Amino acid sequence: MKLEAPILITMGDPLGIGPEIIARAFQRGAGVGCVVVGNLGAMRRAMALLAEPWPLAVLDSPADIQACPPRCLPLWQAAGLPAGLDRLPWGQVDARAGAAAAACIEAAVRAVQRGEAAGLVTAPLHKAALAAAGVRYPGHTEMLQALAGGVPVRMMLANEELRVVLVTIHLALRAAIDAVTFEAVLGTLRIAHASGEKLRIAVAGLNPHAGEDGLFGSEERQIIAPAIAAARAEGIDARGPFAPDTVFMRARRGEFDLVVAMTHDHGLIPVKYLGIEQGVNVTLGLPFVRTSPDHGTAFDIAGRGVADPSSLEAAIRWARRALAARDVS
Amino acid sequence: MKLEAPILITMGDPLGIGPEIIARAFQRGAGVGCVVVGNLGAMRRAMALLAEPWPLAVLDSPADIQACPPRCLPLWQAAGLPAGLDRLPWGQVDARAGAAAAACIEAAVRAVQRGEAAGLVTAPLHKAALAAAGVRYPGHTEMLQALAGGVPVRMMLANEELRVVLVTIHLALRAAIDAVTFEAVLGTLRIAHASGEKLRIAVAGLNPHAGEDGLFGSEERQIIAPAIAAARAEGIDARGPFAPDTVFMRARRGEFDLVVAMTHDHGLIPVKYLGIEQGVNVTLGLPFVRTSPDHGTAFDIAGRGVADPSSLEAAIRWARRALAARDVS
Repeated sequence: MKLEAPILITMGDPLGIGPEIIARAFQRGAGVGCVVVGNLGAMRRAMALLAEPWPLAVLDSPADIQACPPRCLPLWQAAGLPAGLDRLPWGQVDARAGAAAAACIEAAVRAVQRGEAAGLVTAPLHKAALAAAGVRYPGHTEMLQALAGGVPVRMMLANEELRVVLVTIHLALRAAIDAVTFEAVLGTLRIAHASGEKLRIAVAGLNPHAGEDGLFGSEERQIIAPAIAAARAEGIDARGPFAPDTVFMRARRGEFDLVVAMTHDHGLIPVKYLGIEQGVNVTLGLPFVRTSPDHGTAFDIAGRGVADPSSLEAAIRWARRALAARDVS
Repeated sequence: MKLEAPILITMGDPLGIGPEIIARAFQRGAGVGCVVVGNLGAMRRAMALLAEPWPLAVLDSPADIQACPPRCLPLWQAAGLPAGLDRLPWGQVDARAGAAAAACIEAAVRAVQRGEAAGLVTAPLHKAALAAAGVRYPGHTEMLQALAGGVPVRMMLANEELRVVLVTIHLALRAAIDAVTFEAVLGTLRIAHASGEKLRIAVAGLNPHAGEDGLFGSEERQIIAPAIAAARAEGIDARGPFAPDTVFMRARRGEFDLVVAMTHDHGLIPVKYLGIEQGVNVTLGLPFVRTSPDHGTAFDIAGRGVADPSSLEAAIRWARRALAARDVS
């Protein structure tokens, strides 16, 4: 992987805030070395929301990034997008928008797989628009996993203070408990371990007080502790299971580098507690770097030019750091 | 309830940090208007850990607080405590220590019920010591509930930024899900509502994204939303159910005064995330005010004079404020 290969930023649902936060991030200087994968009309309409719009430079290939002049937004158009995206009303669920968003993701992954780009930052999708377009994946993670050949992946949420990797995500809590298996926990520990150098990984329990010695649930003894032991036998620095209510505070203070959480909300409540502007969503386990902002399409404010690009900018920074770490390791 | 009636502070397990944080809190000026319920030997030993120990003034009744001179710790001894508590080693589970801690709580509640004291602040118990003493309650909350005649109570955890009331507490997560019933949620909303004036109460869902319209679980639609509607019909300003991962952040920013959480860890993870020094545990629903610090006996550091009294001091401040609010309302 060459350092000069660009990072691709997919535009997300063109009727959400994706295009405008991308445009603003470039104007604020965060887009250096990045190419947008999207549609000319949609991106131009978003750029026009800003005070001093930049022109767009349409590239034949992401690798042509050097041809983009300064103060220009480099755009690579995915093939076969529906026409007239820039005439659809902002903030609506629309099958055409969903289809366009999905096509951009697929085009971007293929470009990364061909070696034309180094990694991927994705602007938000809208689940209902995806579904209306007949896309059979509920979101980015599942789609990227399929495009990468079905490798096991895990969601990591991170900000400057805390990194959390989730064993289960979009399941009812009852079903999530059933999905906390030895294999799922060990698999998560392996993927989390591979995401950085010498990580001190804390594992949060599932039950209050991590089960209080079996008094409040058996999953810690029967599933989580054995998975931690198996991971340690592989050389992974995993510790726990710890009481969920204090392990995140301990990680924030520096005792651990990363926390593995059993459920979506155990992990995301602390990551989001101090505000979601700086949160980054990272898909671990893929054969390429992929990050995204930690928020949705924000249909309620889309098209008004007021959306905050901070989380997208943090996602770009994270992707850049992850790629740099790969190149030196 | 007379304003001059003292607040009682129970010493907690005499082999934990309770006695020494009480002694230190008095020396730091936090104990004004409070009387300690404990044992002379145990409290004197804890006071001796500090740089300039205060003498102890043993009162015949909590109401004699005015007889305690300045720079003296006012102590009311519960009857029938085991002898020799001050010769037991620090930081050990001991049935005599558990029995003494329980006796102090009972004596304090009876004094409050007789009108000799205004409210209760409790230093930490050790569950194993209680059990060794044959006490049939696992902790403070259950014991206080029984002493108050079995009224329904709920645990509130609070700091300067966030107040959380829990529908379920010390249960395995699977059992906690089963305990999230219409009656439990509505009962929690009533108790939370009664804890202050004009509270804007947010209700967190149980499942990721509060069930995402039924896609990730049915409890929000079948149980939580109907309970919120019933509470609203009673004039309670309850809203939701909201996605658990963002509702605490929203409350911290001021959108709500209090969050009702379905599980122990959904509620306690955000309260503790910024540090537990300022956390206060409040039992709502009792006919008297009761608060406690948000930490345990810390056997590992007990007897070294290094324990931080901040959370106990916050608990005393909270009790004082709650009593003042009662007196004006």
